[in-house]
Amino acid sequence: MKRIYMDHQSAVPLDGRVLEYALPFLKDRFGNPSSQHTPGLEAREAVEEARGKIAALVNAGAPKNIILTGGATEANNLAVRGAAYRNADKIGKKAVCSAIEHMSVLNPVRELKKNGFETELAPVDGHGLVDLGRLAEIAVPGTVVTSVMYANSEIGTIQPVREIGKIVRAAGSIFHVDATAAAGRIPIDVEADGIDLLTISSSDLGGPRGAGALYVRPGVKLQTVMPGGGQERGLRSGTENVFAIAGMGEAARLAALEMNEESSRLAEIRDALISGLLGIEETYLTGHPEKRLPHHASVRFTAIEGEGILLLMDRAGIQVSTGSACSSQTLQASHVLLAIGLKHEEVHGSMVLTLGRSSVIEDVPYVVATAAETVTRLRAMSPVWNRKKS
Amino acid sequence: MKRIYMDHQSAVPLDGRVLEYALPFLKDRFGNPSSQHTPGLEAREAVEEARGKIAALVNAGAPKNIILTGGATEANNLAVRGAAYRNADKIGKKAVCSAIEHMSVLNPVRELKKNGFETELAPVDGHGLVDLGRLAEIAVPGTVVTSVMYANSEIGTIQPVREIGKIVRAAGSIFHVDATAAAGRIPIDVEADGIDLLTISSSDLGGPRGAGALYVRPGVKLQTVMPGGGQERGLRSGTENVFAIAGMGEAARLAALEMNEESSRLAEIRDALISGLLGIEETYLTGHPEKRLPHHASVRFTAIEGEGILLLMDRAGIQVSTGSACSSQTLQASHVLLAIGLKHEEVHGSMVLTLGRSSVIEDVPYVVATAAETVTRLRAMSPVWNRKKS
Repeated sequence: MKRIYMDHQSAVPLDGRVLEYALPFLKDRFGNPSSQHTPGLEAREAVEEARGKIAALVNAGAPKNIILTGGATEANNLAVRGAAYRNADKIGKKAVCSAIEHMSVLNPVRELKKNGFETELAPVDGHGLVDLGRLAEIAVPGTVVTSVMYANSEIGTIQPVREIGKIVRAAGSIFHVDATAAAGRIPIDVEADGIDLLTISSSDLGGPRGAGALYVRPGVKLQTVMPGGGQERGLRSGTENVFAIAGMGEAARLAALEMNEESSRLAEIRDALISGLLGIEETYLTGHPEKRLPHHASVRFTAIEGEGILLLMDRAGIQVSTGSACSSQTLQASHVLLAIGLKHEEVHGSMVLTLGRSSVIEDVPYVVATAAETVTRLRAMSPVWNRKKS
Repeated sequence: MKRIYMDHQSAVPLDGRVLEYALPFLKDRFGNPSSQHTPGLEAREAVEEARGKIAALVNAGAPKNIILTGGATEANNLAVRGAAYRNADKIGKKAVCSAIEHMSVLNPVRELKKNGFETELAPVDGHGLVDLGRLAEIAVPGTVVTSVMYANSEIGTIQPVREIGKIVRAAGSIFHVDATAAAGRIPIDVEADGIDLLTISSSDLGGPRGAGALYVRPGVKLQTVMPGGGQERGLRSGTENVFAIAGMGEAARLAALEMNEESSRLAEIRDALISGLLGIEETYLTGHPEKRLPHHASVRFTAIEGEGILLLMDRAGIQVSTGSACSSQTLQASHVLLAIGLKHEEVHGSMVLTLGRSSVIEDVPYVVATAAETVTRLRAMSPVWNRKKS
């Protein structure tokens, strides 16, 4: 059976070109970048080259403004906890994030609350856009850090980051943007957007897992969340994973080169998917109809459960997601779908399709037909649906 | 020029068999273990298999007692900070570690001090062995966590872990052991040794970087140091790096199988190296003459600088270390060598040779001869040496 993988929000396959580029760092070029001998210096060089490529992807200026981490979760932790703990004395003990952030922002904010910070979530509208008026009331002077994601991985909505940045910076707050889902898919410019801290994920770029990056605007001080040997200017300890870092750099370089063309290609598939899926009875788009990631289609079907859809689609060779892979094991209702105003009974029938290099428009009819069959079959067994229709 | 790599404490080359085993997880088997579809379930299976192999290496019992992290630094952070913050209310606000711990234990302990904990360092003797009498006076009831490494990567000394465990547990303290340098090189049994928390590094086993593990004795509660999506029973968030984890598991399996034979082989090379090096004028062993890691030779030469030795040895194709790669960039005096009682002027002439699979006894004469030439050459330029000899 052909596998049609449309779950790139959960995992992006490593780009074959990236693997080829980075594989030597799993073989002969294995040195520790902190070592002063030849293998060490070779490794250091590879790390610094990658830093430059990552900086270039988001217009970060000098490579040193990029702090390499073990992944996006760690970069989000360093941004939110690192900025709050380090600057609370100077700015204030309040932290703000949007209601639809990833758990690696939300849970650090909860930790801050436990440790005496005032915290507040900025609400979003029915399309997932942050309410700018409310944000201005929430992100007030004394707010040490405000975190709003560039785009949401569950509903695809792209935030008006530049407008948000103006509000956040006017309040004197450090502005963190989690660009895990957005980087490499849409253009990002930390200068133009007024971003202080930006999270980038290697694996979302088609790079290896085990690397991530935080852009840190010069002058913004952070406290490490990983004390130890003092790598990365003391902000992130641990021997550098040169393979993952070199791969991330190459993935960033390829993304910068190919993003425009690839994103147009994916947007066409996305639009065909959405249009096909919305043809299924009582099916609704989640997220914004226009301001959405080019690779991202998400809908909800009334009266059925996402897990059932996922499993039946998988049997037909199609991989999709019900929402966040991170929380899918817990089967909790998606905080993102609740935040955009859906009722508890509405959030469970969600399906998220996220595209990547393997996605082709020729697959759309089969995916849509399989979804339609799946929905029909599950609704036939659904007491809610049958009650509704009887 | 042939490269003779004798710096396995800084970086161990990835075992070719491990790479072959784990490479599919960089290609087709790329799923996110939290996804419920086929690629996700395949990835989950690989992670759980690795967990079992790692557990078996240290007699950890059920695989669930192994928490997978992004590396040894993170595992040390989770152990020290995680145990202290979670259990301070119940046990007390004191934390203890030995004076020769890795920075990824020492700096977390410093963070605890900054956050109101009483902290104390247990001294070691001239061979690097923890002073058990002093430890008993320091690790008193009310000490929430006591951290002593299994063996030291700079001087090779193996601690009497079982004796230390008895003292620590008698005080009601949680006992953490950093086995980064020891695991896979000497047998470790967390049951027999009475260890509550044990750090294992993937890369030190010959596995990929980007993975580490913390054994957590059932019943021992920790606070996460990486909040987010809630992977690893809530203790370590971030999408699992399946390639690195699967590789670490396979490296652990191979280590368990081959440790005895390989360690005997390396110990013979080590002894030949030490004996040859001690033939150089005014050269002294650092660390314990018998209780030392089988792959580890470390000496100090009077009146010269380790960096000079390292660079000249490297020009001759031999890679060695001056101490800890993590702190070698800062050129700070080694806290380990100071702790064993060396004077400031004595710690700078240190050379550490650490062996691995590529090491062969046939290389020993060349390494010793090169070291002797290097030392002679550097001493000829050393004012300290010349003053001494004139």
